[in-house]
Amino acid sequence: MSKVIVDVSPSLDGYLAGEEVSVERPFGTAGHRLHRWLGFEGATPAEADHEAAAAMFVTAGAVVLGRRMFEVGIGTWGADGAFGRPCFVATHRPHENVDRGPTSFEFVTDGVPETVAKARAAAGGKDVIVVGGASVVQQCLAAGLVDEMRLHVVPVLLGAGTPLFADSSAAPVELEQTGVVATAEAVHVTYRVTR
Amino acid sequence: MSKVIVDVSPSLDGYLAGEEVSVERPFGTAGHRLHRWLGFEGATPAEADHEAAAAMFVTAGAVVLGRRMFEVGIGTWGADGAFGRPCFVATHRPHENVDRGPTSFEFVTDGVPETVAKARAAAGGKDVIVVGGASVVQQCLAAGLVDEMRLHVVPVLLGAGTPLFADSSAAPVELEQTGVVATAEAVHVTYRVTR
Repeated sequence: MSKVIVDVSPSLDGYLAGEEVSVERPFGTAGHRLHRWLGFEGATPAEADHEAAAAMFVTAGAVVLGRRMFEVGIGTWGADGAFGRPCFVATHRPHENVDRGPTSFEFVTDGVPETVAKARAAAGGKDVIVVGGASVVQQCLAAGLVDEMRLHVVPVLLGAGTPLFADSSAAPVELEQTGVVATAEAVHVTYRVTR
Repeated sequence: MSKVIVDVSPSLDGYLAGEEVSVERPFGTAGHRLHRWLGFEGATPAEADHEAAAAMFVTAGAVVLGRRMFEVGIGTWGADGAFGRPCFVATHRPHENVDRGPTSFEFVTDGVPETVAKARAAAGGKDVIVVGGASVVQQCLAAGLVDEMRLHVVPVLLGAGTPLFADSSAAPVELEQTGVVATAEAVHVTYRVTR
């Protein structure tokens, strides 16, 4: 059964990016501090970091992301579009499809649930990976669409930026912790959403 | 060398308590959801949970807490005051000392740094444990007073309540992850603050 999996790298204080996110600086003032575990900033990831990176898309049939993440990211994702599979961008503003080699971006204007539904249909029984940004993750959680979360918690307190989680009036969401591996660059922890 | 150690139990989305904290409900709408790893709510803690609980005060010479935590907690801490050592309460409003068996509470009105300094002096070379609430933790972090953090991250998204971390204009605080143990009830993770 196809699952919807959130896969993101927050700081310990829960930010997915610093302040002043822009096309020039997709993660704002945080730079690539949250992605050293992927080898950025001259870091040397550990074996468990490599394994967490390799696992990110191994079951993925499709990807969901937000429009802002697309806007600030597309210039950095290269000729192959980085994701190598159908991607669905939740947005309020229509946009023509974008193709980058094996990666396609389709823009869905009728809400995050419909974006996830389209991704699920395109995934052919494989999983849908929600890669961000925070607003899309929050809307997926609020709509009860998330089956798993994979967090790569980075050992830094950014103090400001884009929070992964937002205040929500929804009932508490109970989780089951299903795996933890820690390295110098991240605590890779996975949760199953229990319903 | 005496260390200042924050030891708290946040939800995965970073709340130390739910909404509507009161004397009647010290953790508000969250009840004791964040303390199942300590055996509350009929839970059966795992061996690693017991070890994390036992480790909490083993090196502690003194405790620091906030006035609000004292107010809502003192009625639940019993005849021995729960902490079994000198406690220092950061507050704006003076209050006479409170003694509960081996536990003493002294109220310090000249700021969180001075509260920590008094606790350090009383700790006799042992560690100072900062048990909350969130405001005191944040002020300790902002003042650069924290040597270690022990977080017992509970697998639930509360969605609302008292956030452990607050927006801060201070520079990012770099951490070194020094230990992780996961159980069904919590991910016990420790960090050293690097300066």
